[in-house]
Amino acid sequence: MEPFSINILGCGSALPTGRHGLSGQVLNIRNKLFMIDCGEGSQLQMRHMHLKFSRLSHIFISHLHGDHCFGLPGLISTLGMLGRIGDLTIHAHAEAETLLRPILNFFCKELPYKVRIEPISPTLNEKIYEDRSIEVFSIPLQHRIPTTGFLFKEKQKDANIIREMTDFYKVPVKELPRIKKGADFITSSGEIIPNNRLVKPAAPGRSYAYCSDTAYSEKIIPIIEGVDLLYHEATFLHKDLARAEMTFHSTALQAAQIAQKAHVKQLIIGHFSARYTHCKDLQKEAQSVFSNTLLANDGMCISL
Amino acid sequence: MEPFSINILGCGSALPTGRHGLSGQVLNIRNKLFMIDCGEGSQLQMRHMHLKFSRLSHIFISHLHGDHCFGLPGLISTLGMLGRIGDLTIHAHAEAETLLRPILNFFCKELPYKVRIEPISPTLNEKIYEDRSIEVFSIPLQHRIPTTGFLFKEKQKDANIIREMTDFYKVPVKELPRIKKGADFITSSGEIIPNNRLVKPAAPGRSYAYCSDTAYSEKIIPIIEGVDLLYHEATFLHKDLARAEMTFHSTALQAAQIAQKAHVKQLIIGHFSARYTHCKDLQKEAQSVFSNTLLANDGMCISL
Repeated sequence: MEPFSINILGCGSALPTGRHGLSGQVLNIRNKLFMIDCGEGSQLQMRHMHLKFSRLSHIFISHLHGDHCFGLPGLISTLGMLGRIGDLTIHAHAEAETLLRPILNFFCKELPYKVRIEPISPTLNEKIYEDRSIEVFSIPLQHRIPTTGFLFKEKQKDANIIREMTDFYKVPVKELPRIKKGADFITSSGEIIPNNRLVKPAAPGRSYAYCSDTAYSEKIIPIIEGVDLLYHEATFLHKDLARAEMTFHSTALQAAQIAQKAHVKQLIIGHFSARYTHCKDLQKEAQSVFSNTLLANDGMCISL
Repeated sequence: MEPFSINILGCGSALPTGRHGLSGQVLNIRNKLFMIDCGEGSQLQMRHMHLKFSRLSHIFISHLHGDHCFGLPGLISTLGMLGRIGDLTIHAHAEAETLLRPILNFFCKELPYKVRIEPISPTLNEKIYEDRSIEVFSIPLQHRIPTTGFLFKEKQKDANIIREMTDFYKVPVKELPRIKKGADFITSSGEIIPNNRLVKPAAPGRSYAYCSDTAYSEKIIPIIEGVDLLYHEATFLHKDLARAEMTFHSTALQAAQIAQKAHVKQLIIGHFSARYTHCKDLQKEAQSVFSNTLLANDGMCISL
């Protein structure tokens, strides 16, 4: 199966520790890389994880807090030094243009490619990217500043032709594309051969939702319903709920409640506060509500 | 002896590799920390090397290329989250103010301390910092943009009183400060006791010079003459001299020639180009001219 994997570059919260770096992930979807958030050190982690800079496609920035975007200037410079020529599109909130452009104009004067900043509407749930393999949708989150999660949905591939059957029914080659898309076949004698006798359905499209940073918000549930993997921030333990509410973050318990209510297949929690030295406690708390909960870790790779 | 140590956060050149991070060093001088350059990831390396953020005093930025300063916004945010209240002074070339201030105004709105940017005159060799322990001097370097090295000179401490001798000559306590500074003592009977009979001289002040990035330049020799340790960039092997000259960098051989001509006690080379997988070759080349050459490495600590 073609890859659909999530590489965790860093999964700490704003204050980096010796255990966790700053927010950043790289998705490998059918060998094209997409970055979500780019905290300081993201490019260094990419090197350590042997993720190929040349495969990097669009970048998605959830919000303009430093721990989610301070790695951009360094990454952009590096891509220039590596000779990138194709445009780089960064999906981010509108102020990114005002903030990043002067930095690029000064430090990256001779960049051999163009950086395009595509503004995200923070209140909308809409399609913000599409290629032949995937669609990406924005997920409005609840944080101290405009913040957006991202839903990556692999497109359903065409069904696989059962060669023995199409040979048996003498299906002409020119009919195959339609049959792959679901059409029945009508033989020269007028017999209708139902599509499901001619093809094996393709594997269902895989899906991944990234929700960080956010307060507990049930509004996201219909958007992320049934995803294969949900990354939901779990900055705090539920005993620190007051602090979570004050800072518009979630507790591990709340992340698990969202996962449960949205019937996701698997949950991975991250964005851990520096105050917890034992992140296993966060996992245990989440698992008390939603057993299929993973604990993110820097350098981790999860394949769907 | 009180510490005077150099902690190498990163010693790669602009393109980070899995082997070397970006430029950054932390000097521990009598338990006060000074940072020289702050490439992306510097704060993360400080964490890994257990260097205390609370001890961080002034920061010195050699030049405004991203690999020497992209770590500043993250470090500044972190110091704020850790509750720093004392001013932070960053010595850097004048444009740093224009570039950094908008970033701080947006991302670090509620910083509990003040960031002061102290402009460096790139063409002058002058004292740019002084406290009771050290003096820091600027070293004009030759690079593609205004670039400055830094000479850290520990002040000579007062001599150590030899208690037995001052007791024997009945030196009054109020005379001791003068004697520590080198004065002789005159007894009540008019006898002159020479200073060297009353004190043991203090250890000589230690010194460290940081010279990166720079083309080969003999102009720096009188400034760094005789230092205990010289960090000199050695981006290239001498076989790549043409490339070094074109980019205003030095070869390992040239770094060693400077060390030799300046009669420094020890040389450490760094800022290695990503093209060399075996940095030992750079060390061998330098040692052919100046045998006491160390190879910098990320995470290394050298005590003087």
